[in-house]
Amino acid sequence: MTIAVIGAGYVGLPLATAFSKHYSVVCYDINKNRISELLRGIDSNKQYSKKEFLHKKLIFTNHQNLLEKANIYIITVPTPINLSNQPDLSMLEKATILVGNYIKKNSIIIYESTTYPGCTEEFCIPLLENTSSLKFEKDFFIAYSPERVNPGDKVNTLQTITKVVGANDKKTLKKVGQLYEKICKSIYRVNSIKVAESAKVIENVQRDINIALINELSVLFHKLNIPTNEVLKAAATKWNFHYYKPGLVGGHCIGIDPYYLAYKAKKVNYFPKLILSGRRFNENMGHYVSTQTALLLSGQKISINRAKIAILGFSFKENIPDVRNTKVMQIINELNKYRAKIEVFDSIVSKLEVKKQYGITIKAFKDLKKKNFDAIIIAVSHKEFLKKLSSYDRYFKDKNKKIIIDIKNNFSEKELNRNKYIYFQL
Amino acid sequence: MTIAVIGAGYVGLPLATAFSKHYSVVCYDINKNRISELLRGIDSNKQYSKKEFLHKKLIFTNHQNLLEKANIYIITVPTPINLSNQPDLSMLEKATILVGNYIKKNSIIIYESTTYPGCTEEFCIPLLENTSSLKFEKDFFIAYSPERVNPGDKVNTLQTITKVVGANDKKTLKKVGQLYEKICKSIYRVNSIKVAESAKVIENVQRDINIALINELSVLFHKLNIPTNEVLKAAATKWNFHYYKPGLVGGHCIGIDPYYLAYKAKKVNYFPKLILSGRRFNENMGHYVSTQTALLLSGQKISINRAKIAILGFSFKENIPDVRNTKVMQIINELNKYRAKIEVFDSIVSKLEVKKQYGITIKAFKDLKKKNFDAIIIAVSHKEFLKKLSSYDRYFKDKNKKIIIDIKNNFSEKELNRNKYIYFQL
Repeated sequence: MTIAVIGAGYVGLPLATAFSKHYSVVCYDINKNRISELLRGIDSNKQYSKKEFLHKKLIFTNHQNLLEKANIYIITVPTPINLSNQPDLSMLEKATILVGNYIKKNSIIIYESTTYPGCTEEFCIPLLENTSSLKFEKDFFIAYSPERVNPGDKVNTLQTITKVVGANDKKTLKKVGQLYEKICKSIYRVNSIKVAESAKVIENVQRDINIALINELSVLFHKLNIPTNEVLKAAATKWNFHYYKPGLVGGHCIGIDPYYLAYKAKKVNYFPKLILSGRRFNENMGHYVSTQTALLLSGQKISINRAKIAILGFSFKENIPDVRNTKVMQIINELNKYRAKIEVFDSIVSKLEVKKQYGITIKAFKDLKKKNFDAIIIAVSHKEFLKKLSSYDRYFKDKNKKIIIDIKNNFSEKELNRNKYIYFQL
Repeated sequence: MTIAVIGAGYVGLPLATAFSKHYSVVCYDINKNRISELLRGIDSNKQYSKKEFLHKKLIFTNHQNLLEKANIYIITVPTPINLSNQPDLSMLEKATILVGNYIKKNSIIIYESTTYPGCTEEFCIPLLENTSSLKFEKDFFIAYSPERVNPGDKVNTLQTITKVVGANDKKTLKKVGQLYEKICKSIYRVNSIKVAESAKVIENVQRDINIALINELSVLFHKLNIPTNEVLKAAATKWNFHYYKPGLVGGHCIGIDPYYLAYKAKKVNYFPKLILSGRRFNENMGHYVSTQTALLLSGQKISINRAKIAILGFSFKENIPDVRNTKVMQIINELNKYRAKIEVFDSIVSKLEVKKQYGITIKAFKDLKKKNFDAIIIAVSHKEFLKKLSSYDRYFKDKNKKIIIDIKNNFSEKELNRNKYIYFQL
């Protein structure tokens, strides 16, 4: 048995690595640079070290013809949104057509990419049938097993999580369940592709709404002069309270998946009242943070169009290089409207990638110049930024006007007051 | 030291009972009937048996003058909403004025009633000062310790939960913390009344939104012909998914508290986007259930204006007699608009109270007549209703048209199909 994994990213690499301990695996990606790095033992996503994925039984390639010998295909390509917040299925489409060209009698195709309920059956299967001239459920078989990758999380990994596996027929479900049992501690089987698709997409809708609610409470409590942090900690002492922190919500999951479910809902004339309400609020947090920054500057009689602002952190989450759908961009865009002078510092993200994708120049934290800034925004809680508060003193132009925007509440109010900071926290 | 507990209901009775093991307690209620029952050892809320609260050191009374000898007052009166969904502070006002008449130098007044942030300081304290001619923080002191009573829950009780205690000055916080330490396993102290008020009210806002989201998913999945139940169970295998079931959301907490927080928000010109969004959806579920009932009846060519419908369960939650803000009323009201013939069965609620409060006649489950109904709605999952599905067969007029609306998913789809039921589930 040979497994072909399509997509060598956050989802594909761990899968390919894990399966290669039991089977021959071909891991295919259209990104030549990524493949060449992997062949040299470099994982720029920093999920793995060289030793872990350089096996004899694991081939990294961007040559399609190596997919010929596989009988199981796992599709792990990204399913992002376009500029109008609609599902962008172009990569899913390309991967499906690619696989359709190589599948043969009794091939099993497993989708791991997040999507809306019905997408696999309504969009992917017809494409596979057309490309291959084979028949679904007669010649080839389909399973859906949603990825649950949590970048930067060392506890909940492919090996330790419960993996949902869904198929419409019992035989495929059994086969695919047994396959994943080789690499995952626990398998949860569901009797249809749609249930598996739905289970995945709602997880992040729930998270999005829960963080949005906390963000709204933070905005309200700020108006009421009540410390959100203390309220949340007190509420969290109740047995059934869910403790979330306020913050920017970006990334490739929470910031995307609600749009997928809403897209499907609208297709059947259901106009969601709640599914997008998390997005509606969270998409505005960058704007809120930049407004609070502008207010603090004005309060100190600093003209924001002349202000120098350091933004610390650019990735969508702490301690990872992942910049997909980062909402730090929103803060930058909003502050640019005021013509503020912005510098962005982050030693973890790829400077090249950020320049290419966002046109933003990223500097290393150590290059933060002394006596240079009117305000510092700690946007992401990378470890390198969690220093003693007083160590930030040196970067301010005016030691009587130390403005800090501490989005993730890294510092206590006590500490901020004692060090005479002028501050805003969510 | 003597403690006066104002309000002998779901919150007051457990408090008075617990404190009476350590102190002399006077438990006051304006409801003469309630006091007379308690004096005879009857708790119609079914939280306690006779033995537990009939102590020498616990006096139940509706005579105000017995409040004279107290030095600590705990206010536990209901804080409901009026017909326009605005906070109804009338009981809080009366209780505060009552206590204001009796407090003396160094009295401590503790509020347990749920309310909006700021209510204690802006509404209650001025009332206390005016009535008593004493000064807050000079003559008398205030703490806020939100009740976390969960009717019907034998695990999370006053004794076992973490009790939040808040006060604006350290001395009062210390005293009141020590007081509650006598009866609660764990105390969580916060440095202001506002933080304690906020912590309480947001708990139920969070629950409301979470259930509302699941309700919306249920409505959408019903349109997509996807079994909600199976999706939720699969999603719940993720480490950070919160497993809620769809359903009616009424009662005196989740159905009320969001209106309190929204009221305060609007007062400071913040118009909430999410805080009321749970309510907005959940307040519509009774309507949705009745529409689904009407559709099933029409599908079987039964005229709904002639249909006989049995509704099983009337309380706001399973296995408790509490009918405050029960959303079963919504289903009844909606079906009444169709002129359906409705009978309501519930052996746990007080027939007298329901008649008085809602004008609805409640029958015992055993009085459900055979061969009499076109549809049965199991609205509340009281134990008495969780019988074998086939035992419901006998109540239907036509054994080929057994329509069941199983709101809380008591029966599996397999079972419903095998027994040839025509059904709707959330």
